[in-house]
Amino acid sequence: MATYKAPLRDMRFVLNELLDTERLRRLPGCDEVTPDVVDSVLDEAAKVCEEVLFPLNRSGDEEGCHLVNGEVQTPKGFREAYRTFAESGWTSLAADPDYGGQGLPKTLTVLMEEMFCSSNLSFGTYTGLSRGAYFALRTHGPDDIKRRFLPNLVSGTWAGTMCLTEPQCGTDLGLVRTKAVSQADGTYRITGTKIFITAGDHDLTENILHLVLARLPDAPAGIKGISLFLVPKLLVREDGTLGARNGVGATAIEHKMGLKASATCVLDFEDAVGYLIGEPNKGMRAMFTMMNDERVSVGVQGLGLAEVSYQNAVAYARERLQGRSVAGAKHPDQPADPLIVHPDIRRMLLTMRAYIEGTRALAAWVSLAIDEAARHPDADTRRSGDEFVALMTPIVKAFLTDIGFESTNLGMQVLGGHGYIREHGMEQYVRDARIGQIYEGTNGVQALDLVGRKLPAGYLARFLEPVSAFIAAHRADAGLAEFVTPLDEAFGRLQEATAVIGRAGFTDPEEAVSGATEYLRLIGLVALAYLWARMAKAAVPKAGAGDDARFYRAKVDTARFFMQRVLPQTASLLAAINAGGRSITGFDEASF
Amino acid sequence: MATYKAPLRDMRFVLNELLDTERLRRLPGCDEVTPDVVDSVLDEAAKVCEEVLFPLNRSGDEEGCHLVNGEVQTPKGFREAYRTFAESGWTSLAADPDYGGQGLPKTLTVLMEEMFCSSNLSFGTYTGLSRGAYFALRTHGPDDIKRRFLPNLVSGTWAGTMCLTEPQCGTDLGLVRTKAVSQADGTYRITGTKIFITAGDHDLTENILHLVLARLPDAPAGIKGISLFLVPKLLVREDGTLGARNGVGATAIEHKMGLKASATCVLDFEDAVGYLIGEPNKGMRAMFTMMNDERVSVGVQGLGLAEVSYQNAVAYARERLQGRSVAGAKHPDQPADPLIVHPDIRRMLLTMRAYIEGTRALAAWVSLAIDEAARHPDADTRRSGDEFVALMTPIVKAFLTDIGFESTNLGMQVLGGHGYIREHGMEQYVRDARIGQIYEGTNGVQALDLVGRKLPAGYLARFLEPVSAFIAAHRADAGLAEFVTPLDEAFGRLQEATAVIGRAGFTDPEEAVSGATEYLRLIGLVALAYLWARMAKAAVPKAGAGDDARFYRAKVDTARFFMQRVLPQTASLLAAINAGGRSITGFDEASF
Repeated sequence: MATYKAPLRDMRFVLNELLDTERLRRLPGCDEVTPDVVDSVLDEAAKVCEEVLFPLNRSGDEEGCHLVNGEVQTPKGFREAYRTFAESGWTSLAADPDYGGQGLPKTLTVLMEEMFCSSNLSFGTYTGLSRGAYFALRTHGPDDIKRRFLPNLVSGTWAGTMCLTEPQCGTDLGLVRTKAVSQADGTYRITGTKIFITAGDHDLTENILHLVLARLPDAPAGIKGISLFLVPKLLVREDGTLGARNGVGATAIEHKMGLKASATCVLDFEDAVGYLIGEPNKGMRAMFTMMNDERVSVGVQGLGLAEVSYQNAVAYARERLQGRSVAGAKHPDQPADPLIVHPDIRRMLLTMRAYIEGTRALAAWVSLAIDEAARHPDADTRRSGDEFVALMTPIVKAFLTDIGFESTNLGMQVLGGHGYIREHGMEQYVRDARIGQIYEGTNGVQALDLVGRKLPAGYLARFLEPVSAFIAAHRADAGLAEFVTPLDEAFGRLQEATAVIGRAGFTDPEEAVSGATEYLRLIGLVALAYLWARMAKAAVPKAGAGDDARFYRAKVDTARFFMQRVLPQTASLLAAINAGGRSITGFDEASF
Repeated sequence: MATYKAPLRDMRFVLNELLDTERLRRLPGCDEVTPDVVDSVLDEAAKVCEEVLFPLNRSGDEEGCHLVNGEVQTPKGFREAYRTFAESGWTSLAADPDYGGQGLPKTLTVLMEEMFCSSNLSFGTYTGLSRGAYFALRTHGPDDIKRRFLPNLVSGTWAGTMCLTEPQCGTDLGLVRTKAVSQADGTYRITGTKIFITAGDHDLTENILHLVLARLPDAPAGIKGISLFLVPKLLVREDGTLGARNGVGATAIEHKMGLKASATCVLDFEDAVGYLIGEPNKGMRAMFTMMNDERVSVGVQGLGLAEVSYQNAVAYARERLQGRSVAGAKHPDQPADPLIVHPDIRRMLLTMRAYIEGTRALAAWVSLAIDEAARHPDADTRRSGDEFVALMTPIVKAFLTDIGFESTNLGMQVLGGHGYIREHGMEQYVRDARIGQIYEGTNGVQALDLVGRKLPAGYLARFLEPVSAFIAAHRADAGLAEFVTPLDEAFGRLQEATAVIGRAGFTDPEEAVSGATEYLRLIGLVALAYLWARMAKAAVPKAGAGDDARFYRAKVDTARFFMQRVLPQTASLLAAINAGGRSITGFDEASF
């Protein structure tokens, strides 16, 4: 039987012992985020995840969604779970108190997002998209629209979506064809077809607010002619009550590899009433508000799935008796030793563990910067936070989903044939994790964003500075040398790779982006090395004795494993980048 | 619409231009394997794969198998396809002419196995298991059993299975509990439950021959007390006609991640009549005859799936218009450039290509040794062939399935969201490829076999010798330096890693096996580097001009990509091995 327990001890370590949460509490509206409050919120979140969402995860995958008479039906139990979820306030965590939200900082909500993803990723997409729609509306919507639509979105009475993709355009949104025609009353009429719309229709809420990219009749061609519209499924009267059905509906749902309890819809818009959000032809800017937040959240999906897969792989490895330790029987009283004695099983579990705890710290570190960028009273601090977040967003999205997929595959491998059958649920994590590498901009597009936009903008310094300061401060610390020395070496590789790519960028953009995927992974690994070194520093003094010494010893030992067995990947990545891109760009197109 | 065309040009290159097929033709029974014969057999195989098997691949996945009244029904069209397949002689390719087979060498049949896997892996499991059962019976069965059972197995009138796994034992077959009791007439009665039996029941053939591991009443405990039995689904009279139903039947089929058109059965044996194959308590030896052949075939599954995924990814990348080349629009007349202009798309396609063509060569190289080991008149040559095959079997199984999974994931990634939905078939290749890393001994077990058995046996020299001779012979060849230099460097890394593991092996077996997975991948990559250098050598002289210059240029360019962008992985693998296993074996078990 699959299990999930929220990793609260490690979450508290990240929040209270790794990050400087004093920095967080000094931010406006965050003074009440004390360890006690954190504890109680995390405890409550853990409860709803373990008891309400997780039990529906496998049944939701088996049943999937159904389109019946143009309406999507979610799997059995989802409606009741959603009601409990919304009534307990879980949809309003991050939202502004002005609209009924709890105003919690991202540094805290990111931990709960992880739990939602661990326990039921499909369920999480319904609330995740609503959160993204909320941010775009709050940031770019006119006041009357915000007053009319946001409170119900925040309370979870209504849900939200992002409608970008069309049959002829995915990554390249300049090709959007959906049309918007202005009306005398200031509204617009939207007509077109959107595909791959996550949570595009469902029976969890009374209404759904679609945020739709479309083109005005006089719009310039390409990406500079895209505007953003709010198109509610049911019209909403001035007083906020529900009116007639709008001209939008699901005409099909996709059959997918995974994420089956999340409805991926084809939506047809036909003269649907819409409201302009932001300025005409500036829709991409507004959409990016939503997409950046979503990208960090998608990264966290990889983390959440890796965590639940790890827990179940460990449980199986302890229980399943198979073979004998190569060093001699460890449990001669039993017919065989448990799997966990075998070094290759431990290698898989430790790899997952090093990735999971490392990326949990990474997500929290970036989230703290998100909070500073949004809330800090000082404009310079906000700007530097913004730059750091802009740099790290593609890394969190791509690196965390890549290793989420790798980790869930390792977890499944631990179970052998029992991992491949559906019964244990391990293969579902693999199928669910796979989409993270694709949606919200494929991981290749994230790498291009990092190398083609974020590096030229000069944002890399925001990452290099704290890491090099940490290395300088601890280079002479013998007790941390086994962590700081490999970090230093990997950091040197990152600087070399950056120089190679930077030089190419001036003269040959194709050459510069040919190593983008390797570069993104390289910086992701260096970020993890930095955080593992910091975690080791925090844990070493407490690993000797005391109540929780085992926790800290495991932290130190996992840091060691990461440095010795995972971080060496950076050598290969640098070598591939140094080899240049000629073998890629010069390959004859007709010969593929 | 998904497509598949057998890669005949590249197969002919491997057979006629890379390998020394004169060596093959000198083997007894192989003198007729001329280029003309090869061409016509490959052409015919391509036809049945493209026209009969491939069209049933996706529908078979969608429909799956069903257990109805204790009998497995295969998906629509499978029975007719099987009839065509068997009647055309495709089940008898490798079998001995004494039993109606065609006696074709593995060097040739391995190419057809690849086609079967590319076009319909699930279908291929039914015939693949029959081939494995044939080998075990032919090698270890008594003459009367062979006369009675083999001709119908070879003709495809009957099928075969391997029944090893039980609920409490997968890898650790010493835990087998199924019992065999001898009868006065020389037969045995078999009772027990077997699980995960691929092709364990189906409606494709009149009868199914189960090869079953079981334990005699007086058998020693553990792996030394296992015997092998033949248990037919329907009893077979002395004259070869079918008798009554035997005491074996499917009680359930598994619901799996993929390979859905292949029935994975729970088989219950209750006093089923069985025939001893080989000596009592020596069942594992007999089973390994079958398993080694199956392991090479499972490796080829990874290759076959990578190939079909590559073909469809290339087709999509040429067709799908999305974004502009970073070097400026390449097709300004169209609304966007095709995906194939983007370096990251090309990186994915070239990675697949380098793996596919490299592992096709590797599978053929090992297959030639299989043929020499089986057929060569000289005992020393047979023995050295055997040792090479013993060394390479775990590598082919694990390395090819690992990169089969990586490659099908790359192929899926090229399609973005369209790869994640079922419609294009790309995600099926991923799901189907995943089992290869698990069945026939997990890839971790393969690595343990390599490091724990094959290295200590001294077989590594069989690999090192030809590679080091090639390097020595071509080190001064300036025209090949870009291939031979990286090969030489990677070869040095392999030797260093071998020394590290060898030293540990003497004193600390846990330490020695802690790097087994990395070591297996390292030797796999060096093998590919060696074969890519040889392929480059064969192609360079023909790449300048002539009818087929484009083919040879692509070969040279892919070799270059492999050396520059893939082979650097070896640096990380060596670093991880050099770091030792203490961080793995020393981790506190209770802290996982």
